[in-house]
Amino acid sequence: MTTPAGFYETHAELLDQAVRATTVRDYWSAFPESPSKSVYGETAAPAGESAFRALLGQPFPIEVPGAEGVVSTERSPWGLELGVSYPKADPLALVAAARVATPAWRAVGPQGRAGVAAEIIKRINARSFELAHAVQHTTGQAFVMAFQAGGPHAQDRALEAVAYALAATSSIPGTSEWSKPQRGGDPLRLTKTSTVVGRGVSLVIGCTTFPTWNSYPGLFASLVTGNPVIVKPHPGAVLPLAITVQICREVLAEAGQNPDLVTLAVEEPGDGIAATLATHPDVRIVDFTGSSEFGNWLEANARQAVVYTEKAGLNTVVVDSTDDYKGLLRNLSFSLSLYSGQMCTTPQNILVPSGGIETDAGHRSVDEFGADLTAALDKLLGDPARAAGTLGAIVNDGVLARVTEADGAATVIRSTAAVTDEQNPGATIRTPVVVRLDAADDKAYTREWFGPVSFVIATESTDHSLRILVETVRAHGALTALVHSTSPEVLSAAREAALDAGVHLAENLTGGVFVNQTAAFSDLHGSGANPAATASLSDDHFVTGRFFTLQSRHHV
Amino acid sequence: MTTPAGFYETHAELLDQAVRATTVRDYWSAFPESPSKSVYGETAAPAGESAFRALLGQPFPIEVPGAEGVVSTERSPWGLELGVSYPKADPLALVAAARVATPAWRAVGPQGRAGVAAEIIKRINARSFELAHAVQHTTGQAFVMAFQAGGPHAQDRALEAVAYALAATSSIPGTSEWSKPQRGGDPLRLTKTSTVVGRGVSLVIGCTTFPTWNSYPGLFASLVTGNPVIVKPHPGAVLPLAITVQICREVLAEAGQNPDLVTLAVEEPGDGIAATLATHPDVRIVDFTGSSEFGNWLEANARQAVVYTEKAGLNTVVVDSTDDYKGLLRNLSFSLSLYSGQMCTTPQNILVPSGGIETDAGHRSVDEFGADLTAALDKLLGDPARAAGTLGAIVNDGVLARVTEADGAATVIRSTAAVTDEQNPGATIRTPVVVRLDAADDKAYTREWFGPVSFVIATESTDHSLRILVETVRAHGALTALVHSTSPEVLSAAREAALDAGVHLAENLTGGVFVNQTAAFSDLHGSGANPAATASLSDDHFVTGRFFTLQSRHHV
Repeated sequence: MTTPAGFYETHAELLDQAVRATTVRDYWSAFPESPSKSVYGETAAPAGESAFRALLGQPFPIEVPGAEGVVSTERSPWGLELGVSYPKADPLALVAAARVATPAWRAVGPQGRAGVAAEIIKRINARSFELAHAVQHTTGQAFVMAFQAGGPHAQDRALEAVAYALAATSSIPGTSEWSKPQRGGDPLRLTKTSTVVGRGVSLVIGCTTFPTWNSYPGLFASLVTGNPVIVKPHPGAVLPLAITVQICREVLAEAGQNPDLVTLAVEEPGDGIAATLATHPDVRIVDFTGSSEFGNWLEANARQAVVYTEKAGLNTVVVDSTDDYKGLLRNLSFSLSLYSGQMCTTPQNILVPSGGIETDAGHRSVDEFGADLTAALDKLLGDPARAAGTLGAIVNDGVLARVTEADGAATVIRSTAAVTDEQNPGATIRTPVVVRLDAADDKAYTREWFGPVSFVIATESTDHSLRILVETVRAHGALTALVHSTSPEVLSAAREAALDAGVHLAENLTGGVFVNQTAAFSDLHGSGANPAATASLSDDHFVTGRFFTLQSRHHV
Repeated sequence: MTTPAGFYETHAELLDQAVRATTVRDYWSAFPESPSKSVYGETAAPAGESAFRALLGQPFPIEVPGAEGVVSTERSPWGLELGVSYPKADPLALVAAARVATPAWRAVGPQGRAGVAAEIIKRINARSFELAHAVQHTTGQAFVMAFQAGGPHAQDRALEAVAYALAATSSIPGTSEWSKPQRGGDPLRLTKTSTVVGRGVSLVIGCTTFPTWNSYPGLFASLVTGNPVIVKPHPGAVLPLAITVQICREVLAEAGQNPDLVTLAVEEPGDGIAATLATHPDVRIVDFTGSSEFGNWLEANARQAVVYTEKAGLNTVVVDSTDDYKGLLRNLSFSLSLYSGQMCTTPQNILVPSGGIETDAGHRSVDEFGADLTAALDKLLGDPARAAGTLGAIVNDGVLARVTEADGAATVIRSTAAVTDEQNPGATIRTPVVVRLDAADDKAYTREWFGPVSFVIATESTDHSLRILVETVRAHGALTALVHSTSPEVLSAAREAALDAGVHLAENLTGGVFVNQTAAFSDLHGSGANPAATASLSDDHFVTGRFFTLQSRHHV
């Protein structure tokens, strides 16, 4: 057994660095993103793959309170037979077990809780290859992306949440001495203690496309602020979170804590246990990533809880002008293709003035821009093996149906195509569809077409594009916005428009940084300022609602 | 004109000290609480009184957007004729004016906004005597209390909120340089900017007993985080907030800002403009102090806003044992008498084991304790002039009705009495009622009897008292709890009980510190952890929900 204080001692330097990184926000990362042997060692990759293979077709080794039967709900978009089954728990038993585990966790204090969390994340990192296979075969991400986004990038986001939670729960000192001068007498003197108390049982509802990356911030923010956490994965992506919960429970038990501080809640599709749990009076925190429909339902109905949601939106690109047209096209076509646009950050609405744009390759009309973007996509995705590595696989039939629907539009300028990956003949892979629209076609472009579907939309002018950006994002939300312009005035207007819309902006991305990607410890993900999300990963607001500070005072 | 940056420069040292004080939490105060000449100068007191007198019977000099008629709704609990009238505004015009004023305020940035706020608070401090008279003659507080709680203590709470808001809005740097190493190539480099954007129009709903102290934290937290603020005073206590808003507008105009960033919203009782404003789609922040009924309504209905409420509760005292019985009685009787128990922090439920308590003056049965407390109250309030200075006046007929109702109980152990203040013959002054109850009489003691009403409640044991503390506070809320015990085990159990109940605890107060009083920069007021309040004055959580941080990134 290692005490929480012992884990804190082990990881104090890492935690200090992480806390400092949240305030400096230059580049900092604790977990190397490269799955190379030089970083993770010769044996890590094969050992991780073996560990993953050993889980297939088996009951997953994890205990849940009030177990009652098993479920097996996952299928790999790459065609691999998974057959992992998980014990199903009674939701009421999960909540009850979580409550039982809470008081001892409260007594641990901020540093010990952060130490335990850091140990958990380190062990998650050590299983990055195993997790990468689990993420690949549930989400459809290509392996390298599954490794990076599902592994080290998610671990950085986890550590970032731990850092915010540690800093916030330590900002009021545990003890202070108060001495108030009195005229003509001794000062009034009190000793005061402050104790962090978690809000209550925390529920993390995972999504099917980024089960770890999107769940870790809420999971670790809640845990470090003193709350037990019930992890409810999407039925399509259970394994990455089951491994995560397994590691959490293992470390908690080693730290002398009740492992039921973190439990797994699986279900058959349609069981609706997320709604049951989210509205339980003892569940006081809900983190959710997924559809606007259920996210809005949670916000309206989980009234006893604070609710952090990330939902759908209309990620928007305003194209005005560029001095690196090739770079623009290369960068944008990759953003549209990466994981088949199945990222909550993938651009959808590309606004181009009907008079065309000025570029270093000359004037381009809207139609020429559409043709150039199509050519860039064709070039990027020309080789099937490389294309599969960028596109990944289509995660579910819903995405496939939208691709098919969009491909049937009268004004398609780039049709989707199936890609055959020789390594994974059972995989469902599709290239992006691009549709030409006008500003008046808002019925089509003001809903989210999650997946590889985007629109080149002709507007009256760049001013008009910025107005559409503000109006559509205010009304429907967005996680990202991108502007391309060589004009300082347009860039300045775009920044103001993004502030008005409440969306983070990227400007003139033409190189190796993509609008879909945010870096932990530097970029915020979501803002809370538009309907796509009620919170931002991660900032002080993301953690301060998860706990209370209670004081006691007495004379010295 | 002084720019916001200029005001920041002027007050930078004060703001630095204030921010540091929020993290150290030993004794710190920016504004002297003594109304003495040696502190505020020879002329301050008479000048302040003259300024107050000059306001009586006049239209109050303040502009409001969309003015339509006037209201005059205040009466002094001390009997003074006030006759101040205020221009009434159309609520929609207030919201519209607030929105117009917002963009320029956003552009000022955190430091400039904090500088303007500090200048406002300094000017409020300079008008402390005028404000003290205004507070006295609206709330019924005695003059010295009105000066302290309505003046310097409120100003300290205001500055504390400014400090939290400044720190929170500065924690992510305005600019950062991001440089990510790339294998075998130049690093990826981005410049990132972060901009604080207010959530939206803020509404502060004042109360009748502490119009400044309870309103300032929300007002200044919202203003410094970039939001315009509509101040809606209680119809019974308009003047202190009208003076405050007047000062805000004066400083904002001098800073080159639109004064409609802070506006006054008055009403006739029953107009219901608080509800109208609180549910307006552009109102995104609500701060409220007052009844549980309206506070709960706001939480349920102002769904487009974040809602910070302070409502009713059952402040509880657990008496187990003491080694300073006289001190206990002196301290407790003062707590019950101060401002006639019209503080949201005044003890109501005094839990005593039926077997009695051990004290340095020997064993005391419940009945003896009740008699001793009665004697202590009689001694404290024996001299009418001194009694008036402690009790103040009864603020309204609702309180008077409750005193009368409690006084009619069969088990009264101390009856209320009217006190005649020769200086203020028109004042309504009453001494506290104490009623003896048993633990089974929870119908009586589980509702708040706001005013000078308290209960000595016999329980089975101190353990039972602590259980009642936890159960009643969890169900009905509390802002304060107090325990008296000489036993380390009982004190430890009381601390755990207070953590379970979610209430701040004071232990063995027998001297010059009272459970009703909290000190800015050291004590939290409210916890958010029980139904009496959804927030704590002030901590990070109180400010972080009032703004968003939006980023923009581009290649270097």
